[in-house]
Amino acid sequence: MDKIKIGILGLGNVGRGVLKILNTNKEEIQKRSGYDIEIGKILVRNIDKNRGIDVPRELLTVDPDDILEDESIKIVIEVIGGINPAKDYILRAMKNKKHVVTANKMLLATEGDELFDTAEEEGVMFYYEASVAGGIPIIHAINESLTANKIEQLIGIINGTTNYILTKMTLEKMNFHDALREAQEKGFAEADPTSDIEAYDAMYKLAILSSLSFGTKINVDDVYREGITKIEPIDIEFAREFGYVIKLVAIVKETETGLEMRVHPTMIPERHPLANVNDSFNAIFIKGNAVGDIMLYGRGAGDLPTGSAVVADVISILRGNVDLSAISTVKKNYWNREINPMDKTRSEYYVRITVKDLPGVLGEISMIFGEEGVSLLSVMQKGKREECVTVVYFTHSANEGMIKSAIDRIKSSKYTKSVDNIIRIENIQ
Amino acid sequence: MDKIKIGILGLGNVGRGVLKILNTNKEEIQKRSGYDIEIGKILVRNIDKNRGIDVPRELLTVDPDDILEDESIKIVIEVIGGINPAKDYILRAMKNKKHVVTANKMLLATEGDELFDTAEEEGVMFYYEASVAGGIPIIHAINESLTANKIEQLIGIINGTTNYILTKMTLEKMNFHDALREAQEKGFAEADPTSDIEAYDAMYKLAILSSLSFGTKINVDDVYREGITKIEPIDIEFAREFGYVIKLVAIVKETETGLEMRVHPTMIPERHPLANVNDSFNAIFIKGNAVGDIMLYGRGAGDLPTGSAVVADVISILRGNVDLSAISTVKKNYWNREINPMDKTRSEYYVRITVKDLPGVLGEISMIFGEEGVSLLSVMQKGKREECVTVVYFTHSANEGMIKSAIDRIKSSKYTKSVDNIIRIENIQ
Repeated sequence: MDKIKIGILGLGNVGRGVLKILNTNKEEIQKRSGYDIEIGKILVRNIDKNRGIDVPRELLTVDPDDILEDESIKIVIEVIGGINPAKDYILRAMKNKKHVVTANKMLLATEGDELFDTAEEEGVMFYYEASVAGGIPIIHAINESLTANKIEQLIGIINGTTNYILTKMTLEKMNFHDALREAQEKGFAEADPTSDIEAYDAMYKLAILSSLSFGTKINVDDVYREGITKIEPIDIEFAREFGYVIKLVAIVKETETGLEMRVHPTMIPERHPLANVNDSFNAIFIKGNAVGDIMLYGRGAGDLPTGSAVVADVISILRGNVDLSAISTVKKNYWNREINPMDKTRSEYYVRITVKDLPGVLGEISMIFGEEGVSLLSVMQKGKREECVTVVYFTHSANEGMIKSAIDRIKSSKYTKSVDNIIRIENIQ
Repeated sequence: MDKIKIGILGLGNVGRGVLKILNTNKEEIQKRSGYDIEIGKILVRNIDKNRGIDVPRELLTVDPDDILEDESIKIVIEVIGGINPAKDYILRAMKNKKHVVTANKMLLATEGDELFDTAEEEGVMFYYEASVAGGIPIIHAINESLTANKIEQLIGIINGTTNYILTKMTLEKMNFHDALREAQEKGFAEADPTSDIEAYDAMYKLAILSSLSFGTKINVDDVYREGITKIEPIDIEFAREFGYVIKLVAIVKETETGLEMRVHPTMIPERHPLANVNDSFNAIFIKGNAVGDIMLYGRGAGDLPTGSAVVADVISILRGNVDLSAISTVKKNYWNREINPMDKTRSEYYVRITVKDLPGVLGEISMIFGEEGVSLLSVMQKGKREECVTVVYFTHSANEGMIKSAIDRIKSSKYTKSVDNIIRIENIQ
């Protein structure tokens, strides 16, 4: 059997997963790829760090040139993450005619085009299945399986940390902070959870998925982003009463006025398959004009699931005989799509307000909504504390801009104590 | 843009779906494949038949040679179904150096090896995503995305007709015959529904999935098959009381004594994602030793979903530049797997019996189970009619052989009026 030498940049969580899989599933990988994969070098920052995995010391190096300049290494796996130095390493690897596999969503979302162009110029393969939703083959599905479709809409739960937190808040009635702490204790959230709970992670992933689904270049700044920190148990309770579940959802769809990309907490119907995606699981729901509704569900993170996607990409390269066609035709920016500005997006809304418990208050606020063109589906008043009551409004479909104007006026009404939360509702069919 | 000419064998439901997609999504397909696809000829049995689709008459032919012997046709789509003449046509197409795309599960499940071998000998590509679960890219997932995994288990709802019927029986409390009639009226079941309701359709699909997942040659006779005609509303009701839903489930898993393949009505936990796959939807749940749990969900049949898979395969061929590597490495029978005979499979069981309402009857039947090595989880007695009562047993995990022995003895007990149903339980984790 032919041998092939690979290099690995980084030995964090995903890197260790890759090593475990190459080791545990050696026979499967040999038979399916046709090659015996040998690890040339692994780039680390500190050779002496205890990583809880048995790696021969001589495989570790702190010098990227040991991989990037080694002609015997044919495939480079980048699992460092972040922009620099990952980008520089990948570009150098490509220029040295090495095929590249990456799990780096931030880099792809922000600098993807330069990487794709370089791969094409250099005639090397560049795969990135692990960059979105870990072990779920969503990139493959879009790039290879749904090519006969016009994709109309993609809705995903693509961040495991926030889904874990929201699941705990929903099923065990925890508050946000307790759920976050439990997620951290169980290793589902980082010590600094900002990237997850403020939805930066999901934003990068959605930028990648949008670009592939709609065949267009995406500027990550065009993705609207809103985290889950403002969700309170009372919102989850109101959602339930109206038949919804709150999830951090990433949406891209084409509307008459352009492409709409947004990540935010969203009420979705409790009977929709996405509503039952719990804990740290991810799922992506796609509407194609031929295939109809399709959903992919699985582990969106973790050493082995993400490693599964990385190693599958390596096997694809080994089977592909340096044939670039499949990748390069897919990543092309075929279409220029208008971007729908957030103010023009349409949605139904849930608005939770604390108002003074006075006669005329509901009338006044309903009137403001009406004057701004927002039609109300239902109003619900609940509880009472210190002369105030909580009022919840569910609106019909309205423009984000109209809602904003209405909220601005409601905030300055003499009856209003506070506008406590605004959550979009997606009545996915 | 280069033109490529294709031929289509058959213009039934799937064939019409392919035409619609080639027409509606022309621009997408051109950009993604790099080719302008032109239809050479379409083989039909009767040119004058009204098919409810606008096809130029000169594209239709009743002579297969117009496609198989036309050198200008480079890709042949086979959507006739059945073994003959589809097999002969495919082999001739391959021998004439044409790439082939098929949706033919029966042919693949029974004669797949000859087709794969011929494709390899002739150096042509042979794709078959549409043969299992319509628009769901399950073949791609197994063949390309999960290659880094040892697949441990695959559990699928892969027949839309039976899932529609069981959904109606579960959610609307219909009986089997009414649900079947409604499925027929709505076009989800054929006039002769045998292939679906007796699970032949699912059996062929499971044989294909088993072969690909476990890298081995499968004899379709090794797949245990049992249809849904014996399921009664009372079984669905008992299942619900114990937290289960009844689905026609296809299972392949590796056990210590060999590969186990079976399609039968199964009680699965109501909280499992598969339990919420309703109506004519399909879903396949896979456990891989790296990726963990993964599920693909979507439309398993219909002209456009199935056409979506067929056309995606055509696009893959056009991108692949006649490179056979990816297919041929996958279909190889890498392993010889022992088959676990049905008597040795282990499962939990639900057994519904009508017994005479006499003292000692429960003790006698429980004793028979015990003597045959079957341990009981719970017993429930319900209703009474004409001196008889219905008794339902849920067992712990037991060998199929033990259950059979116990049932044989129970049948001949003087207390037993009838053994009404036996349903396997799969406590999927």
